[in-house]
Formats: sequence, C-alpha cells, structure tokens
Amino acid sequence: MNSLNNLQTLIANSQRIALFSHIRPDGDAYGTSLAFALSLRAIGKEVTIYNEDGLSSLYSFLPQSHLITSPPQNPPPETTLIAVDTATQDRLGSTFLSWKIQPDLNLDHHISNTLYGKMNWIDSDSPASSQILFELLQQLQLPVTAEVAQCLYVGIMTDTGSFRYRQTTAKTLEIAAALIRAGANPSELSQSCYQNYSASRLLLQKEALNTMKFDHDNQIAYFRLTPEMFQISGASSEETEGLVESLQAVRTVEVAFVIEKIDETTTRASLRSRGKIDVQKIASELGGGGHTLAAGIRSKLPLPLLEEKLLEKINFSLQSASGSK
Amino acid sequence: MNSLNNLQTLIANSQRIALFSHIRPDGDAYGTSLAFALSLRAIGKEVTIYNEDGLSSLYSFLPQSHLITSPPQNPPPETTLIAVDTATQDRLGSTFLSWKIQPDLNLDHHISNTLYGKMNWIDSDSPASSQILFELLQQLQLPVTAEVAQCLYVGIMTDTGSFRYRQTTAKTLEIAAALIRAGANPSELSQSCYQNYSASRLLLQKEALNTMKFDHDNQIAYFRLTPEMFQISGASSEETEGLVESLQAVRTVEVAFVIEKIDETTTRASLRSRGKIDVQKIASELGGGGHTLAAGIRSKLPLPLLEEKLLEKINFSLQSASGSK
Repeated sequence: MNSLNNLQTLIANSQRIALFSHIRPDGDAYGTSLAFALSLRAIGKEVTIYNEDGLSSLYSFLPQSHLITSPPQNPPPETTLIAVDTATQDRLGSTFLSWKIQPDLNLDHHISNTLYGKMNWIDSDSPASSQILFELLQQLQLPVTAEVAQCLYVGIMTDTGSFRYRQTTAKTLEIAAALIRAGANPSELSQSCYQNYSASRLLLQKEALNTMKFDHDNQIAYFRLTPEMFQISGASSEETEGLVESLQAVRTVEVAFVIEKIDETTTRASLRSRGKIDVQKIASELGGGGHTLAAGIRSKLPLPLLEEKLLEKINFSLQSASGSK
Repeated sequence: MNSLNNLQTLIANSQRIALFSHIRPDGDAYGTSLAFALSLRAIGKEVTIYNEDGLSSLYSFLPQSHLITSPPQNPPPETTLIAVDTATQDRLGSTFLSWKIQPDLNLDHHISNTLYGKMNWIDSDSPASSQILFELLQQLQLPVTAEVAQCLYVGIMTDTGSFRYRQTTAKTLEIAAALIRAGANPSELSQSCYQNYSASRLLLQKEALNTMKFDHDNQIAYFRLTPEMFQISGASSEETEGLVESLQAVRTVEVAFVIEKIDETTTRASLRSRGKIDVQKIASELGGGGHTLAAGIRSKLPLPLLEEKLLEKINFSLQSASGSK
C-alpha cells in the first residue's frame, strides 16, 4: 500500500490524467471515475475518462457523463493513468491492455484486487470505490462539488443496493449524508438509478419469470433468458442487470441464478448467494469467477447442459452445507 | 402543536401506557410503536402495544414483536393512550373507535393528519414516524437501546423505500447512521424486510405480470389480481404489498396501478404516481383516498368496470397535464 504523501505528490506532479474503470461498468465504476475526474478538473488538471464499453444509456443521467468515452488506440502522451473500481488489470479492457502500461494508481474496494498499479489504494472493507474516493478527496483536500457529490452518491448507492448490502456501515450512511449536504439529491438520483427501466425490460422479466423454477425445497431459484425473449420483449442485453435479484427476494432462496443463451456457442450464467453458499467456488469450477455472494460464468456448454451442471453443483453445496451444521 | 414540556409531563405522569398504530400496518407503524414501547419499558413504564390487525408475519422478525397484540374489547383502566403513524382516528381500527376515547398523544408524519389527539406531535416534513420518534427520544433523553434502534431503523428504511423517496434528507441518513451505531444492522434488517417473501409471492407476481398492460404511450402501466391467481400461486392477500412498485420501475410510467378482485362484490385498486399526476384526486372521485403519490380504492364496481373508469380518469389527467404545460 502507499502513503497519502506519495499520492499527493503523484497528483501534484500530474497535469494530464486519464481515468479508467472496468468493462461492463456499473454505477460505482462510472460514479467513481467521473467524480475523480470532475474534482481534478476543478483544480485545473486536464482529465479524460475512458471506459472500454463507453457510456451506458442507463447512466447518461450522471453529470458530465458525456466526458466518458472509449479509449483511443494509442496511449495519450505524458498522461498519468488511474484505474478505479477494477479488481484485475484485464478488466480494464482490451484497448488498455494493448497499451502495455501499468497504471500509476489503482484505487479499488474489491477484495480480489491484484495490486496491479504502481501505487495501490485499496480498502476491501469499503462497500464502494466511491466511498474510498470520498475519504481520499477529503484527505487530499480536493473539492467535492455538487456534481462530484452526485457521482459519488450514485456509486455508493448502487454498490450497496441502496444501503442494504453487507458492507454498509454507519460510516457509509454518514458519507451519504455529507454528499446530500454537498448537493446530491437522494430521491432524484435513486429515481434515475432504479426507476429508469424500459417497458421492454419489464416484458423481458415477465418472459423470464414464466420459465422460473425452484429446486432443493425452494432453496434454489432460477430462470432462463433466450434470444427469443429479447426479440419478443424488445429488451437489449444490457438490460438484464438486476433481474436475478427478483429471485433473491424469496426468503428460502439460498442460491439464485439466471442462465442466458447468448448464441449457438455461448451460454452465460449469473449467480447470487444469500451467504451460506460460496457461488464464486461453484462458478470457478465451471470456468467462471467473481465473489462469494455474486459470481458469473461464460461457457461454451449449451444452456440445458450448463443448467444441469449448475443445479448439480448447487444441490451438492447445499447438501454439504446442511450436513456440516 | 404542543411543547416538549407538556410531552415530558405526560410521560412522567403515566405509569401505564398503551400504544396504537394504523390498520394494515407497515414497517413504520410497527417500528414506531414497538420502539416507543421498548424505550418506555426501559425506564420502568408498563407498556402494551396494540394493533387492530395484530402482528403480520412479515414483521415478526422485529425484536419483541410478540408484544404486539390485538386490542381488548374494553379500554384498559388508567392508561395513557398514544397513537403513532396514523393520519386519522378511524385508521386506529374499530376496537379503538368503540372505546370512544381520544388519544392522549398523536405522533405522526402524515400531512393529512387530522390532529385528533389531546396532544399532537406532527412533522409532515419527516419521511417516517420513526424519524420523528428518534428525535423525540433524544430530546426527552429516553433510552435508544439496540432493540429500539433496530425498530426505528426498520421504520425509517421501509417508509423511505430504502432511502429513496422524496422526503429523504441528509438528516434521515444521519439518524440512520446513529441507529446503526446504536445497534441496528443495516444488511440484516434490510434482508428481513426485502428478502423475506414467500416463493408463492413470486408466483403471484408472475401471474400478475402476465396480465400487465400499458396505455397512453407507456405512461400508464397496470395489472390484475384475481382470486384464481391467489389459488394458483398459494400467496395470501397480505403479500400483495409492493407489487405495484415493479411497474413504477419503468421510466415512462407516470401512473401505475394494480386492480384486485376481492370477491363477487368487492374490487380494490392501488395507485402510484411518479409525481405529475395526483392519484389521490383520481381515487377520491371513485370513492377512495390516500396521498398525492399513493392512493387506494375499495369499490363495489366489478373489476372490468372499475378498471375502465380508472383508465378513463388517468388518461384524462395525463392529457390535461400535458396540455397545461
């Protein structure tokens, strides 16, 4: 880890800064990179914000979101590179990897972070990279403008599931309160994040629910997504985020998953655990990865076969867990 | 309104206290009454907690929830009566009304509160009665034990939709943080509140979504509930709470409603507005009531007819609203 002084020196000596965040970006990736950029711009730095996947329409409501662009083919000259909210360097995307440059700073909250930066500023107890950044901005006496506050609020709110997930602490809510006082509007921002779905997305959810099944005394819940469902509903593939969470609302469900046929050669699964089962372990056995409570798989197995293998492994884990009580 | 001194005197002079909250109780009704009772018990008062509908299984996780019972036929002697979170006296239920006693204290946050208490402690800017009670306990120097904090946290969290609704302020999050420091566990309590559904409830949602329709360029979304759906899914009638909110997640939806056939002679509708349309006005025209953003109707009209009238009125309101721009 690095001292605050080193970080202070890095920023003082950098006139041009480029921020990066992970592929398939979420609210914390966008929120943290945008907030950091806007704060650094406020003190006169030239800052660009890159994401391999560009800007998702779901987050275009963020202030100055137009600043988020896809990275250029070649690295910008004499530019300090900062990665935020990204556990491993390859998650920064293929363009960044092709530059073959180590980031100068790696700021993140993932416990699986591989410390790939020249400096690494990691707090795996923090529920969101935006929370780490807020504390850092205060320590470095960098400005938290109203726009910075809005971005940080979105990062914290989305990565804590609206202050519900495990790593949410009193400090998280105190920081959120400070961000509101600095100009973040909680109801407007939550409406932008959570009441911002298309009608098609709800139609897709309906189609998915019609394939819903339970297993292992309602401890497993799952449904399917197929290309046909996207066609019928008109939903786009980025709109599947959060669908699996509707299954987690059932009190008996220890493991929920959604399994998606992408095309004839690719199947994707997204797994969630209530806590008893380590879904990262199950995913990794099938070529995927992630966290204890949330993991994913991309596989060449056809959907029915991957589904069968998943059910087998989850059932086995549940049996083992209840046996070891 | 009444001064803090009067309230202090009331509590000092009361040895036996009974708390009441509204019929069809929610997290704020249960949370506030239970928190108040536990704090008063901690200083040696004899406190009972009544609710006409007793304790819902959805909230049995609250600490000491077994203390919540249906009120006795006759009023307990020499007992101070406190109503919490209840806008009008009739919402305290038929048993309380039959006692023909005015509550000594009426603590509430509803803007429509009719000030029916001998003392009235109302703050309609507050997003939850539990938030008002927390401030009051502090002012009266009454104990906020871990159990009190848990109940208050649930009241605030549920009545703000997890810190998302309009009246959520920095103060709300600061109080929530203080409650966490006093012993409320945010992830455990939110799991109890939001991941506590039965599998049947999800099956009911599936059935309802299959009847979903959109109208007025996706500005209206609605679905039906019928006795057959409850039979197929196995869900109970109290499990319909929150179903309408899945429709509100769509960004174009200004008004969402769920319409339910209770039996051959009764139809119920539950309406939600994003802000532009006053659904209380629409509901009151059809014999119902409520708030600007959330209202309900109980009607003798058969479902298809009430649905038709609702659609007519909502369409008209949307036309008027867009015409008056």
